[in-house]
Amino acid sequence: MTCVGILMGSDSDWKIMEEAAEILKTMGVDYEIEVISAHRTPAKASDYALNAKDRGIKVIIAGAGMAAHLAGVLAAHTVLPVIGVPIASGPLHGQDALLSTVQMPPGIPVATVGINGAKNAGILACEIISLGDEELRQKLLDYRQDMARKVAEKSRQVQESHGKE
Amino acid sequence: MTCVGILMGSDSDWKIMEEAAEILKTMGVDYEIEVISAHRTPAKASDYALNAKDRGIKVIIAGAGMAAHLAGVLAAHTVLPVIGVPIASGPLHGQDALLSTVQMPPGIPVATVGINGAKNAGILACEIISLGDEELRQKLLDYRQDMARKVAEKSRQVQESHGKE
Amino acid sequence: MTCVGILMGSDSDWKIMEEAAEILKTMGVDYEIEVISAHRTPAKASDYALNAKDRGIKVIIAGAGMAAHLAGVLAAHTVLPVIGVPIASGPLHGQDALLSTVQMPPGIPVATVGINGAKNAGILACEIISLGDEELRQKLLDYRQDMARKVAEKSRQVQESHGKE
Amino acid sequence: MTCVGILMGSDSDWKIMEEAAEILKTMGVDYEIEVISAHRTPAKASDYALNAKDRGIKVIIAGAGMAAHLAGVLAAHTVLPVIGVPIASGPLHGQDALLSTVQMPPGIPVATVGINGAKNAGILACEIISLGDEELRQKLLDYRQDMARKVAEKSRQVQESHGKE
Amino acid sequence: MTCVGILMGSDSDWKIMEEAAEILKTMGVDYEIEVISAHRTPAKASDYALNAKDRGIKVIIAGAGMAAHLAGVLAAHTVLPVIGVPIASGPLHGQDALLSTVQMPPGIPVATVGINGAKNAGILACEIISLGDEELRQKLLDYRQDMARKVAEKSRQVQESHGKE
Amino acid sequence: MTCVGILMGSDSDWKIMEEAAEILKTMGVDYEIEVISAHRTPAKASDYALNAKDRGIKVIIAGAGMAAHLAGVLAAHTVLPVIGVPIASGPLHGQDALLSTVQMPPGIPVATVGINGAKNAGILACEIISLGDEELRQKLLDYRQDMARKVAEKSRQVQESHGKE
Amino acid sequence: MTCVGILMGSDSDWKIMEEAAEILKTMGVDYEIEVISAHRTPAKASDYALNAKDRGIKVIIAGAGMAAHLAGVLAAHTVLPVIGVPIASGPLHGQDALLSTVQMPPGIPVATVGINGAKNAGILACEIISLGDEELRQKLLDYRQDMARKVAEKSRQVQESHGKE
Amino acid sequence: MTCVGILMGSDSDWKIMEEAAEILKTMGVDYEIEVISAHRTPAKASDYALNAKDRGIKVIIAGAGMAAHLAGVLAAHTVLPVIGVPIASGPLHGQDALLSTVQMPPGIPVATVGINGAKNAGILACEIISLGDEELRQKLLDYRQDMARKVAEKSRQVQESHGKE
Repeated sequence: MTCVGILMGSDSDWKIMEEAAEILKTMGVDYEIEVISAHRTPAKASDYALNAKDRGIKVIIAGAGMAAHLAGVLAAHTVLPVIGVPIASGPLHGQDALLSTVQMPPGIPVATVGINGAKNAGILACEIISLGDEELRQKLLDYRQDMARKVAEKSRQVQESHGKE
Repeated sequence: MTCVGILMGSDSDWKIMEEAAEILKTMGVDYEIEVISAHRTPAKASDYALNAKDRGIKVIIAGAGMAAHLAGVLAAHTVLPVIGVPIASGPLHGQDALLSTVQMPPGIPVATVGINGAKNAGILACEIISLGDEELRQKLLDYRQDMARKVAEKSRQVQESHGKE
Repeated sequence: MTCVGILMGSDSDWKIMEEAAEILKTMGVDYEIEVISAHRTPAKASDYALNAKDRGIKVIIAGAGMAAHLAGVLAAHTVLPVIGVPIASGPLHGQDALLSTVQMPPGIPVATVGINGAKNAGILACEIISLGDEELRQKLLDYRQDMARKVAEKSRQVQESHGKE
Repeated sequence: MTCVGILMGSDSDWKIMEEAAEILKTMGVDYEIEVISAHRTPAKASDYALNAKDRGIKVIIAGAGMAAHLAGVLAAHTVLPVIGVPIASGPLHGQDALLSTVQMPPGIPVATVGINGAKNAGILACEIISLGDEELRQKLLDYRQDMARKVAEKSRQVQESHGKE
Repeated sequence: MTCVGILMGSDSDWKIMEEAAEILKTMGVDYEIEVISAHRTPAKASDYALNAKDRGIKVIIAGAGMAAHLAGVLAAHTVLPVIGVPIASGPLHGQDALLSTVQMPPGIPVATVGINGAKNAGILACEIISLGDEELRQKLLDYRQDMARKVAEKSRQVQESHGKE
Repeated sequence: MTCVGILMGSDSDWKIMEEAAEILKTMGVDYEIEVISAHRTPAKASDYALNAKDRGIKVIIAGAGMAAHLAGVLAAHTVLPVIGVPIASGPLHGQDALLSTVQMPPGIPVATVGINGAKNAGILACEIISLGDEELRQKLLDYRQDMARKVAEKSRQVQESHGKE
Repeated sequence: MTCVGILMGSDSDWKIMEEAAEILKTMGVDYEIEVISAHRTPAKASDYALNAKDRGIKVIIAGAGMAAHLAGVLAAHTVLPVIGVPIASGPLHGQDALLSTVQMPPGIPVATVGINGAKNAGILACEIISLGDEELRQKLLDYRQDMARKVAEKSRQVQESHGKE
Repeated sequence: MTCVGILMGSDSDWKIMEEAAEILKTMGVDYEIEVISAHRTPAKASDYALNAKDRGIKVIIAGAGMAAHLAGVLAAHTVLPVIGVPIASGPLHGQDALLSTVQMPPGIPVATVGINGAKNAGILACEIISLGDEELRQKLLDYRQDMARKVAEKSRQVQESHGKE
């Protein structure tokens, strides 16, 4: 059953947002993808958020650049957790998107990750879902261990390349 | 007939947005006031924008702070000109509101004025309406002359106070 | 009749400002183009603004980079709506141009769009003119629908490419 | 059963973090409070995160100012969702805390809310927990309705005070 | 003979710009004061700059806040050295004024001092004029020595108050 | 024997820099205090740095605001470790001082602490000196334990005041 | 006789500072070039400034990047006008150099131009020298006219290329 | 004996951190290299810091990007001097890493160098160690002289290439 919606304001955001999809696939969490613009398709945005719960969605991930309103607009229409991914596009390198996403007014939170942080958005979605899914929780713990192993491996490689093992 | 809507995301914005109301009153342009939050009352925001034209509204002025989505959300639902006023609230002093208001994606413009620039929003609304209202245009020209006169007067006062006339 | 003036501070701004021209052409709104520098040709700038109304101009769009004074200088000489386009040039990527354009003192507004937002400047000019031109208003509404259609199309393309339709 | 841990780097953060506690109390979600510094009591921080799951904690909220490492350090030791609250303290008004909290490297997400956004952190924690608690979900929906009602009420007050109802 | 013009965009800038006047008085350099707004009295601004040389002015000091165009507008109309003083007014604390003053396009320089740096503007004007006035140069050297003496004195005071002489 | 020099660009910096003196006193490390300006008393600054080693100084702590050159100028004249403390003074709240202090060109390092971080500068000086002084090292370890104890105490106080122990 | 010194902190700054040299050559003002680092060759920097007046130098232009102290260090040792050119080098794109150059403390001004604004530094030096050199003043006026002519020419080119003359 | 530890949060930081290794090799100071992530291998980070002193380490250099917690986490577990190198990675160009590294809370200092300033970190480590090693101090003085010689040489090259010796 599809339990994560990955939304983005423009198809050009896909090259970043794809990392969220990849981590969900790795973790065995089913997801769907939509390009929905808070400004160009506002009705779709509110409809998506209003119906998400009934369609089985548990977490919504929303990526957008510039005056990034998408995550906030979705959050305004649902009490499901909404994760915002500020996308670095245009001359301000995502500083506009970060502030537009994270500085939500009291009452309507957006769980914001770093600029272009789609991978972390995917992991955060898994962490949330894993509260009710022990198997997923174990996968997250394994993934952590795997990351630690890779860091140690990289450490040896740098040492070797510099003759400092 | 009411032709300008002054909207704000929170009643705490009124102390700033009141300056827009005052200039419109001075210019004899009728207006209405609403506190509408893009996040806490999203349906009201879209309804307002969708119906504004039919109710005779020509220009919408929208003030909001922090991740200020109000002007953008309104602009997404109408082709009336929407003027955005970024409000300085919270620790970032309106830098968040400025970027959230002005950095709109291609297709949906917001005519943004300076941080807390509600007075200029009111004047800009008049400038737009005056394209079809020669009398209002004359009032704007008179207002300009009055401003110039006041600057000259202030200049004399500074000179006098410093003994440098 | 020419009713929009597209001005820019340097011919190097044309690659951005051309998007304003294109949208006006699409909408059937006649325009003229001038390179006028607030600093290198200041008399031309004030003359343009002072005479614009009598020449039939309804809206002035002004793009400039760095300490972008052009829109403000034009606005100082006319009560026509002036739309400012901050151009990203030089090492600060348009942050200087944005603040120089939008932070106008009380009394003289500039309707500012996003950095490099010439397309939105063109649309905003149409929105303003459409208050007295129902046909243009309809074109703007059609353009909106077309944008929404394109977003939906892009959504399908992303879904297909990822096998997630 | 205690299911939310509210942690903060300094007791001076309590005046902000208290808003998270208040919203949890309102929603009937039990919580605990700890002052734990990532830098002055690092062992306590890692111990807390390592043992949280076994103690029944479902979500950790962590507030800190300046080079705000607390949320990140906690997230490094657990796969429970960690919500970070950047606190505005010192001369940079929370810009340092925001970047230190949100810009986490790939693999270890922190769900960041706005600067001083403790109230939203509390609501976000509820949204996450409500995925497995329909009653809490209903409380969140009621809270939303209540907020909307209050905005409408404030709107009337502003209109009345200005004689523009 | 009056050889320095101290201009400011608003009479509220006088509390800062007064420091420029004071240093000129200390140095025995005659000056005049004008409140002239680049936006509200643009014709006065260009007239002042165009006629300054013939009236004996050697250096123009211009202070303005927000989108501070005054120094740039003056510089556009004269080849006399123009010193710009960005004034901290409004929520951005002079960051807008600094960029609007210093980031001038190639061809039209403004000699910019620090935010609220009116005192330094006065000293810089003296340094420029002293190139043709040996007596003034000597006064500047004496002033430097006096500053050094005061720093040494302050050092002793701090040491004494802390019992560390 | 005096082994730390605490320098500051202005006596107004003393209220911040005093925290460095206090921590050194606590740790039993002898120090001296000087107000020396990189700009107003440049010869004193270079003399101090050139002679510091011969006078027994091991570490120099330098605090300055705005275009804070003091630490860099000292570092240019000695190979003793120089610790820079950016002071928040003026409208930019120490952002200017931070960049002016930390962004040193390759070859001449300044060990920079946080804005107004004089206390940390004092501790860092102790850490450096403790490399050759085991007794001081022990004092630093005790100080750490004391800090941890205080955090735990504060935690209890917050819990008690909120009825959540 | 050499009357302008062009100094830079690193030979890598020459590609920018060369524009100052070119404009001086165009204006027939003799100059000299030195690479002098405030940090790596501090004695040379102070010697240059101390002796500049006696060697006939009237204006010093100093370009430097990052924590750009060069202009300030020179200004600390002379009452000749010192023009600072912040150079964009490293990841902060000259924002560090701008603040390090312009935010000088009271008493020691640096006449700062825009980031990488070496051309404007050269013109400003000419403007200062032209106060005692009518022929140079005339060249500056001619240069202005030439710039205006070029802007008009560029305007025609843009119009022609777009078919909008 | 190995007395400097060069740590970095990711192997991609090595291309910057290598400059620290090179300067240490030049100065004859032995060092070791580790890739240790504060977030992905937190236990390794605390272990390294806790054991460093006993293994003979005198100074720890830590480079990390984004929400750069590595230096702070290490400093939390040792009273050895910890030098932080903010790495420019991702869209904010190291501004996030700078603030995350330098803005440490009172009690736990990190000696921060400029963004990507690994070379200066290496020199600073040498300066600290040279307090107990006169030979190393002499090498640092020689290195300084060599830098000054190179600047003079570069000056001649620029002069020659421009025909201005």
